[in-house]
Amino acid sequence: MSGPKTFNGWVCEGKGESLEWKEMPLRAEDDYSVDMDVTHCGICGSDVHTLESNWGPANYPCVVGHEIAGVATRVGKKVTNVKVGDRIGVGAQSGSCHECDPCKSGWENLCKGTTRTGTYNSFWPNGDKSFGGYADRWRGDSRFVFKIPDNMTNEIACTFFCAGVTSYGPLKRHNVNKDSVVGIMGIGGLGHYGILWAKAMGAHVIALSHNDKKKEVAKELGADAYVSTSSEEDLKSIKGKLTHILCTGASDDFAWKTFIPLFKPNGTFINVSLPSWNFPEVPPMMLSLSQVNICGSAIGSPAEIEDMLKFAAEHNVLPWIQKYPMKEAPKALEDFNKNLPRFRFVLEN
Amino acid sequence: MSGPKTFNGWVCEGKGESLEWKEMPLRAEDDYSVDMDVTHCGICGSDVHTLESNWGPANYPCVVGHEIAGVATRVGKKVTNVKVGDRIGVGAQSGSCHECDPCKSGWENLCKGTTRTGTYNSFWPNGDKSFGGYADRWRGDSRFVFKIPDNMTNEIACTFFCAGVTSYGPLKRHNVNKDSVVGIMGIGGLGHYGILWAKAMGAHVIALSHNDKKKEVAKELGADAYVSTSSEEDLKSIKGKLTHILCTGASDDFAWKTFIPLFKPNGTFINVSLPSWNFPEVPPMMLSLSQVNICGSAIGSPAEIEDMLKFAAEHNVLPWIQKYPMKEAPKALEDFNKNLPRFRFVLEN
Repeated sequence: MSGPKTFNGWVCEGKGESLEWKEMPLRAEDDYSVDMDVTHCGICGSDVHTLESNWGPANYPCVVGHEIAGVATRVGKKVTNVKVGDRIGVGAQSGSCHECDPCKSGWENLCKGTTRTGTYNSFWPNGDKSFGGYADRWRGDSRFVFKIPDNMTNEIACTFFCAGVTSYGPLKRHNVNKDSVVGIMGIGGLGHYGILWAKAMGAHVIALSHNDKKKEVAKELGADAYVSTSSEEDLKSIKGKLTHILCTGASDDFAWKTFIPLFKPNGTFINVSLPSWNFPEVPPMMLSLSQVNICGSAIGSPAEIEDMLKFAAEHNVLPWIQKYPMKEAPKALEDFNKNLPRFRFVLEN
Repeated sequence: MSGPKTFNGWVCEGKGESLEWKEMPLRAEDDYSVDMDVTHCGICGSDVHTLESNWGPANYPCVVGHEIAGVATRVGKKVTNVKVGDRIGVGAQSGSCHECDPCKSGWENLCKGTTRTGTYNSFWPNGDKSFGGYADRWRGDSRFVFKIPDNMTNEIACTFFCAGVTSYGPLKRHNVNKDSVVGIMGIGGLGHYGILWAKAMGAHVIALSHNDKKKEVAKELGADAYVSTSSEEDLKSIKGKLTHILCTGASDDFAWKTFIPLFKPNGTFINVSLPSWNFPEVPPMMLSLSQVNICGSAIGSPAEIEDMLKFAAEHNVLPWIQKYPMKEAPKALEDFNKNLPRFRFVLEN
C-alpha cells in the first residue's frame, strides 16, 4: 500500500488553543479504507464542544469536522460501494465493531463494541487516531462512507451526514407521514432540518420556540405554524394536536407538563438535543394517561443514511447553508459561536 | 322506563369504615343503558385504594368493583351490541364524552371530556353516582359493555376487563409478537396477565422480580426465564436482550441505569404501575444512545377490549383466579391486603 501518509488540517493542540493549519498523519490503509479529497465540511456544535473539552477532556491534538464530503481518490481491495472518482461523504461515525447485537441487527450507530470509531477525537481499531474534515484529505472505512446522489451537490450533501440524519432518522423511524402533526422544538441547526424533513414527509409542521424571534424564518423554512412556548395562549392553541415533537433544543426550565398535553393519544416525544441537564422526573400517571412515548435518537444507522440521501434527492430537500473557505475555518467558528448560522456553515476547499 | 330502582351492594360509608351490604339507588335508565345481574366481580388494587382514599378523598358512600361480569336483563332502545340474556362485562371505564379528539379517534380511555365516567367513585353524565360490582345488580352504558365470548366463563372473563386489558392493551399496541423478548416486571396481579399474554403472543418471556420468591410460580405461569433484579449477575445475563419491558410494579429505588441497558435498540419500556413516586430524571444521552421508548398505558380502549376478548378466546388464555362468595367480600379484601391472591380474587354471586 502506497497511498499518502499525511494530510493538512486545522489542528487544535489543547483546550483554548487557536487552530493551526498543519500536516498530520493519515491513519494506515487497509482493505476497507477509502481516501477522499475533502471538498466540503459542515460545522457542527459537536466540533466546538470537542475543541473546548466541554464533554470531557478531548484527546489533543484534534482535527474536528464530521460532515465531510469529497471525491474518492483511493479504495481498499474489499471496498465495493465506492470507486475512485465517486463523490462521497461521511458523518459522525466512521466505524463500528460489526460483531455486537446492535451492529448485527443494522443499528451500528448504537454499537456496543469497543471499536466504535468517532470521525474525530477517537481511535481506529488499529490504534491510529481519527481526524475529521477541517482538512484537505481524509481516510476512513468504506462501511461508513456513502455515495452522494447525482443530483445533489457536495456542499449540500455534507451537512446531511450528521445534522441531516440526526433529524431524519427518528422522524422516519417513528413514521412521520402526511397524517402527522409534528412540533419541531428549537429552530436552530437541527430544528431547521427537522422542519424541512417533516414537510417533505407530508406532515403538518409546527415550529416551537421559546419566543417569537424565529417566527418569520420558521415560516420561510416551510413551517405551517409557529408557537411560542412561553405563551400560554399559543400552547393552548395546539393542545392535543401533535403526533410528534422533535426536540432539538430546550431550555433548562423544561417541564413535561408543558409538552405532554400537546400530544394526541400515543404521541412521540423524540429528543435529539444534548443539554447539560437531565429531563425531569416522569410522573407515572402522566405517562399512563397520555400514552405518550418518550425517546431519543443518536445520529442514524448506515442504512438510515442511505435512505435519507435517497429521500433528500427525490424530494429535493435543500438545507440553508452559508459557505466559508476552508482557510477561514477559525473565522467561521468565531461566527458560529456568535450563533450566526442560518442554518449551517460549510467549509469549502 | 320501568326498570328496577335499586341494587344491593357492599357499601363503604367513609374512610376506615367496614363494608356493609345495603340497598342503594341505581342510576337512571336511558337509551344506551344496560342492566346486568352481576355473577362475578374481580378484586382490583384500585378498589382498596379507593375505599381507603389513597388517591385523594373518595366520594363516599362507595360501592367498588370494576371487573364485572353478569347477564343482561334490560337494554335501552339504542343498544345494538347487547341483548337481554347475553353474558356481558364491564371494566374500569363506563362512559366517555364521545366528542373530544381522543374519543373520536377511538381512544375513549384517554377521554379529555368532563363526562368521563369511572365505573365507581364517579358520576354519570346525568349526575347520578356510579357504583361498582361488589353488588347483585349493575346499570351502565352499552358503549362500555362487552359480550363475553361463548367459550369463556364469566368468572374468567370478569378479570379481563381491568387487569386483563391494562396488560394486553400496551403489549398489543407495541407490537409484541414471536420475535419479541418481553420482560415482565413485578409478578403480581398485572404481571401474571403480562406473562400469559406475552406467551400467547408468541414472545420469549422473562419474569423480572426483585428477589427469587416468585421464581417457581413465574415458570408455572409460562415464563421462559426468571431474573432477580437485585442480582448483578442475573441482570448481566439479559443485557441488550429485551425488546419490551412491561412494568407492573417497581421498588422505590428504581433506576433507569438498571433497566435501559437490558434493551435491544429501539426497545419499549411500558409502565402500567401507579407507584406513589415519580420515575427518576432521564439523562438525554441515555435516551439517545439507547433509542428506548419510555411510555405508559391506561386500561385500554373499547376496541382494544373487544380485540382482547377475541384473542383470549382464540388462545384460551386462562388467568389464575381464586373465588370467594360475594357475601364474603370483606374477608376477600382482608386476604387481598395480605397479598394472598395467586393471582386474582373473584367474588361470585
